[in-house]
Amino acid sequence: MQNFTFKVATKIIFGKETENNVGTEVRRYTDKVLFVSGGGSIKASGLYDKVIKSLKESSIEVIELFGVKPNPRLSLVREGIKLCRENNINFVLSVGGGSAADTAKAIAVGVPYDGDVWDFYTGKAIPQEALPIGVVLTIPATGTEASTSSVITNEDGWYKKGVNSEFIRPAFSILNPELTYTLPPYQTACGAADIMAHIMERYFTNEKNVDLTDRLCEATLKTIINNAPIVLDKPDDYAARAEIMWAATIAHNDLLSTGRIGDWASHRIEHELSAIYDIAHGAGLSIIFPAWMKYVYKHDINRFVQFAVRVWDVDLSFGNLEVVAFEGIKRMTDFFKRIGLPVTLRDAGIDVERFEEMADKATASDTLTQGSFVKLNKQDIINIYKLAE
Amino acid sequence: MQNFTFKVATKIIFGKETENNVGTEVRRYTDKVLFVSGGGSIKASGLYDKVIKSLKESSIEVIELFGVKPNPRLSLVREGIKLCRENNINFVLSVGGGSAADTAKAIAVGVPYDGDVWDFYTGKAIPQEALPIGVVLTIPATGTEASTSSVITNEDGWYKKGVNSEFIRPAFSILNPELTYTLPPYQTACGAADIMAHIMERYFTNEKNVDLTDRLCEATLKTIINNAPIVLDKPDDYAARAEIMWAATIAHNDLLSTGRIGDWASHRIEHELSAIYDIAHGAGLSIIFPAWMKYVYKHDINRFVQFAVRVWDVDLSFGNLEVVAFEGIKRMTDFFKRIGLPVTLRDAGIDVERFEEMADKATASDTLTQGSFVKLNKQDIINIYKLAE
Repeated sequence: MQNFTFKVATKIIFGKETENNVGTEVRRYTDKVLFVSGGGSIKASGLYDKVIKSLKESSIEVIELFGVKPNPRLSLVREGIKLCRENNINFVLSVGGGSAADTAKAIAVGVPYDGDVWDFYTGKAIPQEALPIGVVLTIPATGTEASTSSVITNEDGWYKKGVNSEFIRPAFSILNPELTYTLPPYQTACGAADIMAHIMERYFTNEKNVDLTDRLCEATLKTIINNAPIVLDKPDDYAARAEIMWAATIAHNDLLSTGRIGDWASHRIEHELSAIYDIAHGAGLSIIFPAWMKYVYKHDINRFVQFAVRVWDVDLSFGNLEVVAFEGIKRMTDFFKRIGLPVTLRDAGIDVERFEEMADKATASDTLTQGSFVKLNKQDIINIYKLAE
Repeated sequence: MQNFTFKVATKIIFGKETENNVGTEVRRYTDKVLFVSGGGSIKASGLYDKVIKSLKESSIEVIELFGVKPNPRLSLVREGIKLCRENNINFVLSVGGGSAADTAKAIAVGVPYDGDVWDFYTGKAIPQEALPIGVVLTIPATGTEASTSSVITNEDGWYKKGVNSEFIRPAFSILNPELTYTLPPYQTACGAADIMAHIMERYFTNEKNVDLTDRLCEATLKTIINNAPIVLDKPDDYAARAEIMWAATIAHNDLLSTGRIGDWASHRIEHELSAIYDIAHGAGLSIIFPAWMKYVYKHDINRFVQFAVRVWDVDLSFGNLEVVAFEGIKRMTDFFKRIGLPVTLRDAGIDVERFEEMADKATASDTLTQGSFVKLNKQDIINIYKLAE
């Protein structure tokens, strides 16, 4: 186990009707917020009205920035930074899914910085401060509600890049599972894949003696595996929605990586897919992960056997180690199919002509690595795209 | 799942040689500390010298309060409060095990309070503030390093009582598993039982739909079950010591109780044992838990079956539900025996004459409940003591 420092400063407010506390929570920090959101679905669901009411009750002035899209765009971030500076706003409130929160984080870190906010995403600059951030979450997926990361897409070249900093961990996050009832099945499934990917990126490590965090990873994976089919069958099942929502936060608040070094190559490889083809991140991950696993399993077959046995209930007497490991990968792939996700590029209607370009971008130097469990070069990444055909 | 709020503000600094960072960490808060410790073992091990060196390097003035004993005493707390007030100290540093930290917490909450600090332990007063607290931990057991609780024994009547407050959650805790190498086998085993008890108190709940936290509890329990025998066999096994130390923190930092209501009757019943007979808390728990389980299992046999199957690997085909549940309790009891702990009052050399008195004290009104999973009255508690004979 590696030495580590661990502190999650985000206050989680979890449960039914908790969005009505947003005014009280914001008031601890400020009396004026930038309200960041996609806009459409929160107005349709009535969430917008509830949040505005709560903010008004706490006498909080609201300046709105709507128009966040999936794979959130740098241009909107820049607009938000300008709005905060012009209006002297010192708190950013995200109401929506991970894209709204990642936009809010980018704005929060950009406002007090003299240069271009994209510098943080290319690794040219390291955050030294940020405005405090609040989150009202409607999609359990990215784990951004308690994480140190933000991922933004630069339309100028379609680069999708991330930054990690303690300064952008939200001050509070309000998680009401009821707000996820209206999530369409495909988005629910994409969220499940994203959550599982966050855990698996941490699970596949070269660090030895990580018994507790292995088991915590397995526990969280099993929770998603058991509860995702339930909510797809019954979207307003509070209990199952709650399990998924809390698991999403645990999956990415760094608890599961204490003392270990994660891989993160699959995320990196996927980012190039969703940057170019604008597919949902979770759907990209359900395509890339099976291919990545088939490509790297020999590096540490015992770890893949443990994954198969403990997470996917593969019987150790099923066969030799290779058969057990492959059965685990197969069951994961079948699970993704069962919840309605693509598991090949073909499933997602993606042509197979731009592997070189994507592999080039994926291996260009920036803030993410090319994998830690197995270090990948450009040809490896092309091979993985090919395995995903 | 219940609504909940979750935030663990304690910064964990985990790993080899991390005690050398104590000066830097304290310096973020103050330049003068009350140094609370038992005194003997940290001087013998050389830890005292290391901590003092680190504090001096950060120009921190040190006032010492030595003499903390297991089942820490109220009289020493009062002495510490007096020292802080006289010397204008605004930070309490604990170096040692859970008793030192619980003493430090009691002092921290007592200093800014006009009344008697014992008021917080009897429920007469509720903490409104406390001095910040730092911990250098030498015994993984009580989980106090990231918890909101402190347990103190009042020599005037031998009452052992606890207080819970966010204000006494430590600002930082330094956890170096190497510092636990010299822990004698019996104390190591008592620690394991205490950690397991913290998890089991949370595990046995009436709350339905707590899939994720059930699994996280099971994961943490299995980590202790696997690693405790390793360190008893090889006290300087860093990996296994690290697993136990981190699991101890997770067991009691409230993550495992998010969305659920724990029981805590066994802790309460044990407190009367250790208050009167001054036996180690963990040893009291290894006696009380099997008895409590046999007394209450019928209340929710399915939960005991899940405990048996998932934690103790009892085969579901082993027999009927009652047999499966009992086999789980038996395996837990055997585990306690195997690591050298008493599992009956007789094993601990405790006479059986004061059940009435202990049950009276356990059911007297104060800050802990008489159990939430199953509500116990005085006669129930006497019956549990009898089952533990």
